[in-house]
Amino acid sequence: MLENINGEKLKKLNIAELKLLCEEIRAEIIKTVMSNGGHLSSNLGIVELTVALHYVFDFPDDKIIFDVGHQCYPHKLLTGRYDKFSTLRKRGGLSGFPKREESAYDCYNTGHAGTSVSAALGIAKARDVKGEHFNVISVIGDGSFNNGLIYEAFNSLRPLNTNILVILNDNGMSISPTVGSMHEYLEQLSRDDIHKAKVEKHSNIFARFGFSYDGVYDGNDLTVLIEKLSEIKEKLKTQSVILHVLTKKGKGYSFCEEDPERTHGISGGDKKARTEYSAVFGKTLCALAEKDKSIVAVTAAMTPSLGLSEFFDKFPERAIDVGICEEHATILCSALATQGLKPYYAVYSTFLQRSFDEIIIDICSQKLPVTICVDRAGVSGADGETHQGVFDLSFLSLIPDLTIAVPKDTDEFARMIEWSCTFNAPLAIRYPREGVRLFSKVSPIQAGKWEILEEGQCAAILACGERAISLAYAVRESLNLSGIGVSIINARFVKPLDCEILNSMEQNLIITIEDNALIGGFGSMICSYFAQDGEKTVKPFGYNDRFIEHGGVSDLMDDYGLNIQSIVDFIKENAHR
Amino acid sequence: MLENINGEKLKKLNIAELKLLCEEIRAEIIKTVMSNGGHLSSNLGIVELTVALHYVFDFPDDKIIFDVGHQCYPHKLLTGRYDKFSTLRKRGGLSGFPKREESAYDCYNTGHAGTSVSAALGIAKARDVKGEHFNVISVIGDGSFNNGLIYEAFNSLRPLNTNILVILNDNGMSISPTVGSMHEYLEQLSRDDIHKAKVEKHSNIFARFGFSYDGVYDGNDLTVLIEKLSEIKEKLKTQSVILHVLTKKGKGYSFCEEDPERTHGISGGDKKARTEYSAVFGKTLCALAEKDKSIVAVTAAMTPSLGLSEFFDKFPERAIDVGICEEHATILCSALATQGLKPYYAVYSTFLQRSFDEIIIDICSQKLPVTICVDRAGVSGADGETHQGVFDLSFLSLIPDLTIAVPKDTDEFARMIEWSCTFNAPLAIRYPREGVRLFSKVSPIQAGKWEILEEGQCAAILACGERAISLAYAVRESLNLSGIGVSIINARFVKPLDCEILNSMEQNLIITIEDNALIGGFGSMICSYFAQDGEKTVKPFGYNDRFIEHGGVSDLMDDYGLNIQSIVDFIKENAHR
Repeated sequence: MLENINGEKLKKLNIAELKLLCEEIRAEIIKTVMSNGGHLSSNLGIVELTVALHYVFDFPDDKIIFDVGHQCYPHKLLTGRYDKFSTLRKRGGLSGFPKREESAYDCYNTGHAGTSVSAALGIAKARDVKGEHFNVISVIGDGSFNNGLIYEAFNSLRPLNTNILVILNDNGMSISPTVGSMHEYLEQLSRDDIHKAKVEKHSNIFARFGFSYDGVYDGNDLTVLIEKLSEIKEKLKTQSVILHVLTKKGKGYSFCEEDPERTHGISGGDKKARTEYSAVFGKTLCALAEKDKSIVAVTAAMTPSLGLSEFFDKFPERAIDVGICEEHATILCSALATQGLKPYYAVYSTFLQRSFDEIIIDICSQKLPVTICVDRAGVSGADGETHQGVFDLSFLSLIPDLTIAVPKDTDEFARMIEWSCTFNAPLAIRYPREGVRLFSKVSPIQAGKWEILEEGQCAAILACGERAISLAYAVRESLNLSGIGVSIINARFVKPLDCEILNSMEQNLIITIEDNALIGGFGSMICSYFAQDGEKTVKPFGYNDRFIEHGGVSDLMDDYGLNIQSIVDFIKENAHR
Repeated sequence: MLENINGEKLKKLNIAELKLLCEEIRAEIIKTVMSNGGHLSSNLGIVELTVALHYVFDFPDDKIIFDVGHQCYPHKLLTGRYDKFSTLRKRGGLSGFPKREESAYDCYNTGHAGTSVSAALGIAKARDVKGEHFNVISVIGDGSFNNGLIYEAFNSLRPLNTNILVILNDNGMSISPTVGSMHEYLEQLSRDDIHKAKVEKHSNIFARFGFSYDGVYDGNDLTVLIEKLSEIKEKLKTQSVILHVLTKKGKGYSFCEEDPERTHGISGGDKKARTEYSAVFGKTLCALAEKDKSIVAVTAAMTPSLGLSEFFDKFPERAIDVGICEEHATILCSALATQGLKPYYAVYSTFLQRSFDEIIIDICSQKLPVTICVDRAGVSGADGETHQGVFDLSFLSLIPDLTIAVPKDTDEFARMIEWSCTFNAPLAIRYPREGVRLFSKVSPIQAGKWEILEEGQCAAILACGERAISLAYAVRESLNLSGIGVSIINARFVKPLDCEILNSMEQNLIITIEDNALIGGFGSMICSYFAQDGEKTVKPFGYNDRFIEHGGVSDLMDDYGLNIQSIVDFIKENAHR
């Protein structure tokens, strides 16, 4: 059925047929994700809910926004994208997230948590202003429900005077199990058996914000879902509704049901035997924390992905998971630091964007010794625009009093973490997902001190981070064949710059390489540094000023500005041999 | 009494004496704020609460965090800063906000809304980890209470397993009257008369997060406050408490009580007859909205300060105040734009930092035509570090697909707003508080097109915004006396750059001037642009890489890198006449 399904055909199926459709969707998702990678357990959990929504509502006239958006695969399969589904997360193929550019059925792009209710309110408000009539639905997991944006949106429901449906897809998990009082409250709702009593007893908290609450129902039971959604569709004409359903993350695939945390995201294709920087981080921090009782680890619902599981097991009293609340996590770290503790805030580069104001105001303007461990920095690949970590060097370097370190390999990273314990000021260390031990030795770490790795007369390459250093070596090798010698400098601090090395450089051709956007990044700082020096030519290599879609890491690096050939060509054209 | 007051002496006073002390504090605040400017009505409202807190608790052993921090004047007067109080908000004098650098009684710096509960939790958690014993108190207004950070912090109270006191200082106001369902809920609490019944009936919403709720009490009644705080001090040994008090903003000064919105912030000293950019914004947008029914104005609790009062009166159905929720406001705008409306999001530069992730993900990666009106850009003066708007050119310019405009005067600003209506892509326009009509003519606005204002052979000055243009003219005048001719270019788009003008410039000495941080700003983009051009020397003028404290705007500009003499000197030394 799935091959030719559309809204019209779907609405004509009976329950038995709809259930078969669900199984087809599940099979297709498992097949594709095991091959391409992607989000598995959340998509398996939401199959029935998605089918029921398409049965009851009329998309794309009605609008649906998936919070975070990683659970949109069944929706994609039902909206004309079955044929292309094998291209999921591949370069040029379907995105793993909702994309307006991809389909009229995707009305709002998501990727970061907690935005769907605000977006639904905005779309509904526009509808009202324009005098139009359609339904607007936010589908949100209980993990996202911890984010402050939800409260901000709920709080403005009444002032906006509009109607939306929020479906709370409760599976008890973010990537990690959901934490916090709201989660406990949702659990309490779920424990009650008799719906009638429950509504009266518990609807308060949502009713206060102007919602009519309906729940808790089995979110994997098609019959119940269709019945409830049909009722709610009527209600929506006059009020906003929260529908609370329980779904089973990984439903229908025992491997996932048993371990939804590890099957939240699946890496597709070939696995290379590379180390993860996060593993090095977790191991090093654990070793340090044994001796130093002031070390605290803070995460926003990402414990395992950040390598912190062991730390959380060993030092529960010094391990804090606040849920998907990057702003709160940042302030918490600042406050811990005012009392002499040493907080480590580990976070993906892209999600750190949520902490921007708090890094400025709370951490840096107070000059507090918080170490921000910026994981998944640089191009991160198959998740696309909303997950690339290519802005952090730019948005961090503009902040006064922040030191920014970028290790050249996993070994140097471990030494940097050790060094950070004694560094008494705001610090960010940025690193990609995967890495290797590139070098046998690490020279002692000192803030703002670089390392000269290779000597060469024609040009100097200042490279920042493992991917850039590897690229620099490939460039050097290629140029050696043409008799052009280049030096390679490990620019392991983007801030402060190593003025001693910069001032003593004899080469007049300077190349910078970074796994970051060109605007405001490391290279731009070097351009500014030499802007009044008539002798030096500086050419930065990094990402051009565009959003980078999904695809393989090395393909994207190649295409967006970081490839060996263009660097080699530039040096050949410009080096005075 | 006030001259020599300290915690020990204060605790020995009787109620009558404490009341006298309150009157002394009020008189001192009124006197100082009317002269120096600052926050008036909020500080007058919180006098009794502050005195009661100092009577019951033991600072600085106990810790107090004032949310936003603008209401800390009574606290400063009670903690050894009476002598210096006449220097409030003056260069080198007392800050108008809590500052750890200033006093041991200020344990955490604030300035942006909603951080105090997170900070209190962090300090309390550190206390527990270290096995220490003291009380931690957050004092927060109902305006800040709308911010999502509060929910994030509340939600993690139980997981953190620590005890704090949150005092909800409810005066019904942000700068504008507070909006939203939480505010309605607080009002509902306040309407009940019998405390006992109230607690039982309403404590739910806070109890669910693990707080014991106590209220509502008269926050200007010393006797009641001291009694309640004493009770709560005992309770805090075993649980977290919310104390809800009602205070009167502007209490004791009829001018303020009658108009707390206009007396929230007072401008001190001489008033020059300058236009406010916000007034130009409001007037222009109203005129446009008469004809264009798709224009919507969105603000985060700042309607009058942003010049939007008239718009809100005239077009209530297209005017949205979401409370202090900059993230939510940004997403709302994006969503409105998906439906063909034209949202204008007006916000202070410093608070826009809170929207950083949403500008990237929601507005720009979706390429939605939202116009961000960045008010109070550049050095903003007496409010200090947390309120300077000196980072926006840097953090905005790194975002792909965002056009950034900077008007040269109020007239050009009005034309830019008109032009923005037809510009169908993400746009930011940044401007300072006050300005003038500098020029009699404005050339037609076109994205990425600059204006050559003056011609000169020796150097080219690229100036960005009114303050920079004025500085450029002063520099030109001074250099003319030495026979050095410089051109002045109105770089009214920081992004995209005007490559046509840049490529045709004959001068080899290029000066950039901007009212923004040097790192990542306009000048750094020009340095990068010419980094491979051996002929050009680029020297950017802007703010050095430091946080800028409070003081007068022109003094701060002078001291932090923007003064006529240093630009004149540089050009004299480097111009090839």
